[in-house]
Amino acid sequence: MQRQPQKSKIGRSQPADAARENGFYGQDILSVDQFNRARLEYIFDVAHEMRVLVERFGSADLLQGKILANLFYEPSTRTSSSFMAAMLRLGGQVIPINNVQYSSVSKGESLPDTIRTLESYSDVIVIRHPEVGSAATAAYYAEKPVINAGDGVGEHPTQSLLDLFTVVEELGRVDGLKVAMVGDLKYGRTVHSLTKLLLDFDVELTFVSPEILRMPGEILEKMQRSGRSYVETESIQEVIESVDVLYVTRVQKERFTDLAEYDRVKDFYVVDEELMRRAKEEMIVMHPLPRVGEISYAVDDDPRAAYFRQMRNGMYIRMALLASVLGKA
Amino acid sequence: MQRQPQKSKIGRSQPADAARENGFYGQDILSVDQFNRARLEYIFDVAHEMRVLVERFGSADLLQGKILANLFYEPSTRTSSSFMAAMLRLGGQVIPINNVQYSSVSKGESLPDTIRTLESYSDVIVIRHPEVGSAATAAYYAEKPVINAGDGVGEHPTQSLLDLFTVVEELGRVDGLKVAMVGDLKYGRTVHSLTKLLLDFDVELTFVSPEILRMPGEILEKMQRSGRSYVETESIQEVIESVDVLYVTRVQKERFTDLAEYDRVKDFYVVDEELMRRAKEEMIVMHPLPRVGEISYAVDDDPRAAYFRQMRNGMYIRMALLASVLGKA
Amino acid sequence: MQRQPQKSKIGRSQPADAARENGFYGQDILSVDQFNRARLEYIFDVAHEMRVLVERFGSADLLQGKILANLFYEPSTRTSSSFMAAMLRLGGQVIPINNVQYSSVSKGESLPDTIRTLESYSDVIVIRHPEVGSAATAAYYAEKPVINAGDGVGEHPTQSLLDLFTVVEELGRVDGLKVAMVGDLKYGRTVHSLTKLLLDFDVELTFVSPEILRMPGEILEKMQRSGRSYVETESIQEVIESVDVLYVTRVQKERFTDLAEYDRVKDFYVVDEELMRRAKEEMIVMHPLPRVGEISYAVDDDPRAAYFRQMRNGMYIRMALLASVLGKA
Repeated sequence: MQRQPQKSKIGRSQPADAARENGFYGQDILSVDQFNRARLEYIFDVAHEMRVLVERFGSADLLQGKILANLFYEPSTRTSSSFMAAMLRLGGQVIPINNVQYSSVSKGESLPDTIRTLESYSDVIVIRHPEVGSAATAAYYAEKPVINAGDGVGEHPTQSLLDLFTVVEELGRVDGLKVAMVGDLKYGRTVHSLTKLLLDFDVELTFVSPEILRMPGEILEKMQRSGRSYVETESIQEVIESVDVLYVTRVQKERFTDLAEYDRVKDFYVVDEELMRRAKEEMIVMHPLPRVGEISYAVDDDPRAAYFRQMRNGMYIRMALLASVLGKA
Repeated sequence: MQRQPQKSKIGRSQPADAARENGFYGQDILSVDQFNRARLEYIFDVAHEMRVLVERFGSADLLQGKILANLFYEPSTRTSSSFMAAMLRLGGQVIPINNVQYSSVSKGESLPDTIRTLESYSDVIVIRHPEVGSAATAAYYAEKPVINAGDGVGEHPTQSLLDLFTVVEELGRVDGLKVAMVGDLKYGRTVHSLTKLLLDFDVELTFVSPEILRMPGEILEKMQRSGRSYVETESIQEVIESVDVLYVTRVQKERFTDLAEYDRVKDFYVVDEELMRRAKEEMIVMHPLPRVGEISYAVDDDPRAAYFRQMRNGMYIRMALLASVLGKA
Repeated sequence: MQRQPQKSKIGRSQPADAARENGFYGQDILSVDQFNRARLEYIFDVAHEMRVLVERFGSADLLQGKILANLFYEPSTRTSSSFMAAMLRLGGQVIPINNVQYSSVSKGESLPDTIRTLESYSDVIVIRHPEVGSAATAAYYAEKPVINAGDGVGEHPTQSLLDLFTVVEELGRVDGLKVAMVGDLKYGRTVHSLTKLLLDFDVELTFVSPEILRMPGEILEKMQRSGRSYVETESIQEVIESVDVLYVTRVQKERFTDLAEYDRVKDFYVVDEELMRRAKEEMIVMHPLPRVGEISYAVDDDPRAAYFRQMRNGMYIRMALLASVLGKA
C-alpha cells in the first residue's frame, strides 16, 4: 500500500494546481467550495473517460486491492449503491456499513473512533450522516481520504458535481446556457449547491418557485456579490420556451402551513407532455430523484428527459473522485 | 460493456430456439412458463457444468466486471445469499439492497424509477418483492435482464428450476419417475410451479395433503387438459414404498381454522427414520427449506436426504441463469 | 475446489503439530484453548507477514475464488468489518448476513439448517451469535471451517489473538513483561480470554478493578494451578510506573447496584495525560474498543496509545486465520 501524503489537519484540500498530480491525491471531498473551474474541468474529464471505459469494457482494474468503507448513518439506496458500483467497476472492493442504528457506532461510540477503526481496514471512506459538519469531522480525524455523501442540510458535493457534469455531457458546454431551477428552492440542498458551482460560469439563472419556497437570501446575495444576475418567478410557463436546462425538484406538501396555498400552486410545478411541447428541441430536463409526481411518467420517453442518464453520470463522477483521491486517475 | 439486444417491451423472453445463442442472452427470467423441455435441458446442462467448475476450481471469471443488483424488498437469507454466491463464484460483483424498508425505495418512489436507477449502475437485476407481477413490471421498465426471485404468491422460477435440476442430478432422469408432493399443496407456491414444469415430462404424480390443503382445482384441470393423470391421497404411508421423489413441504398450523383437524393430521406429514425404512433404496427426499419439524433431523444422515444438496443446486442453477442472460454461458 | 480434510465431529481442531501443514487447514477456530505457544507463534508469524503484505501491496490474491459467509446474529460493525476486510484483502469475497432478525434464520429455522445452507454456498463461515456454545454447534454441523466471532459471554478467540499479537508487534516479546488489566474484570470476556492465553507465557499480571468487579475466582484458581502469580489492586496509580502493557476496559455504570460506589471509583479508571506522564517511555496502552470515556482523547496522540494499531492488527490476525484454515497460508 502506498503511503498517503500528509493531509492538512483541517481536513480540507486546497484548490491547488490541478495539473500537478491533479491535486486530488490523498485529499478529502467535502464541499463544492473545493471546486474551482480548473478542478471541475479536471474531474469532468476523468468522469468522461470513466463513461467511455464503462461503455466499452464495463469495468477496469485501476483500484484493484483497494477497499472503500461505505458508511451510511442514514439510508440512501441511490447514493450508497452508486458509490458501491463506482468502486466495484474500478476493480476495488466495498465494506458496506448501512445499519448503523443497530451497530456499535450507535452504542455511544464517537464518530472519530468509528472513523479511525474503519480507516484501519480501508483505503478510502465515504460517509453520509444526518448532522452538518460530520463529514468534516470525519476527515479531520482520518488519515485516509474521506468523501462526503451528504451531511444533513449541509453539503452533498458529489450530487452537485454529477448535476453539472450532466449539463456538460448533454449540452457540451455550460457558458451561455439558460438554466431554470424549479420547485422547492428554499430547503433544496441540491439547488443551493448547484447554484454555488454555477457562479464560476456565465449562465443565465431563473429561480422558479412558490413565494414561500424562494431561494434563500444569502445565496441570492452571494450571486450579486459575484456579479451574477438572476430572475425569480412563480411560473414555469414563463421560462419553458427559452431554457436550456430545466432542473426540477419536489414541492413537498409538508412545507406549507396554508394548505389552500399548496393546492393553488402544486400544479404549476408539474412537468408534463403539454409543457414539454413548448420547450426547445435541444434542452434537457433534470431531477435529482426520487420524484413523486412532479414529472409525469409520459415525459420519460422524451429524449430531453435526462434524469436517468443523470443517475448514471453519478456513477462516473464517483468513479472519477475515487480514482483521483486514491492517486489512480 | 456490450450493448444488450433489444428486449420485447412485455418483458418476457419468448421460448425461442434454444440452440441459437441459447435464447437467454439479454432476456428476463420471470416465470416457469418460459421453460419448455429444450430450454430446461439447456439450462440444466449449463448448471451441471457450473457444478463441475465449482467442484474442481471453486470459481471462474466468466462474469468478471459484471455487477448484479440484488434487490430484496422482503428478507430471504437463503435466496439472496444463493444469488450472491452465484455471481461471486463467476467472478462478478454484487450490490446488495436488502433493507428497502429503510431506504428511498420505500419513501414513495415507484418501482419503475427504482429499477431504472439500479440498472444505471448494474448489468443484471434480481428482484424479490411481495406483490404478484412486480418482477414483470420491473422487467418491462428495465433494459437490463431481470430475474424474478419470488413475487409474493406469484412465481419463484429459480426455485422450481433448482427443484427439477435436483431430480435430474440425483436420479439421472425425469421421465418414468413416480413423484409425490406432500404437505400444504393449496398455498405452496413451490409445488404449484414444479407441477407446471413437470407437465412436459412423463411422470406419475401423487398429491399427498390434508383435505383442506389439496392442490388447487386450476392446477388439476391444467394437468387434465395436458393429458396427465394424477392421484390424490391423505396419507404418505400409501405412497412411500413406490415413490422415486418425495417432495415435502410444511403444513402450517395457521392454515387450519379447526385446530382439532390440525392435531389429527399433523403427524401424518412428518418424515422420520421409520417411514424412510419403508422407502426404496434409490429414491430422494426433497424440501425447499426452511423446515420446521416435517422432516426429523435423524433423516439428515440418510443418503436419500437430498435437501441440502438441493440448496447447493440452487447456486448452480443461478450461476447458469446469470451467465446465460449475460451472454457468457 | 479442494476437498476439505475430514473434520472431527466435535468440531474442535486438536492442538496438533503446528509444523505439519500448520495444523489449521480445514479446522475450526472456536476457542483460545486451541492455541498453545507453538500455534500462537505460527499464527503470529503469518499475521506479521500479512501486515508486511498489506503495507507493501495493499492486498493479495491468496484466497481468490473463495467465499466467506459472514453470519452475524447480533450487530458488530467492528468485528464484521474486520473479517470482511481480511477476506477482501486476500482476494476473496464475502456474503454478509447481518440482519438475521429480519431473515429466514429468525423464522424458527434451526442454526444447523442455516449453517448447512450457508456452507453450500461458501468456503468458510464466520459466526457471531448471542448464545454460548453456538459457534461449537455450528462447527459440529458444518463440513467447512467455522470461525467463532463471539458467542455471547463465551469466547471471542480472534479478539484475544489480536490482543496478544499487538503486544508482540509493539514490544517484540511477551515473556518478562508486566501486564496490568484494568476496569471490569468480572464480566469482561476480553480480559478472561487474554489471561488464559498468557498462562503459556512468563508475565507478571496485575488485576486492577473495583472490589465488585474483580477477576472471577475460577480464573484466579486456574492461574494458581498453572503456577502463575498475580497481584490484585483497586488503583491504577500503584502500577502505572512499572507496567509494560496497560490493558484498559470499560467500567459500566449498569454493573453497580450502589451508585455511590460507582461515583467513588469511576475516576480511578480513567487514563489521561496526567497518568501517562508517570508511565514508562516504552510501554503501551491497549483497549478492545469501543471506549466511552475511560481513555481521554488527549492520549490518542501519545505514541504509546496502541489501541488503533490494535484494531488494524485484528485485520492481520483474521487474514492469517482465514488463509490458514483454507490451506493457503
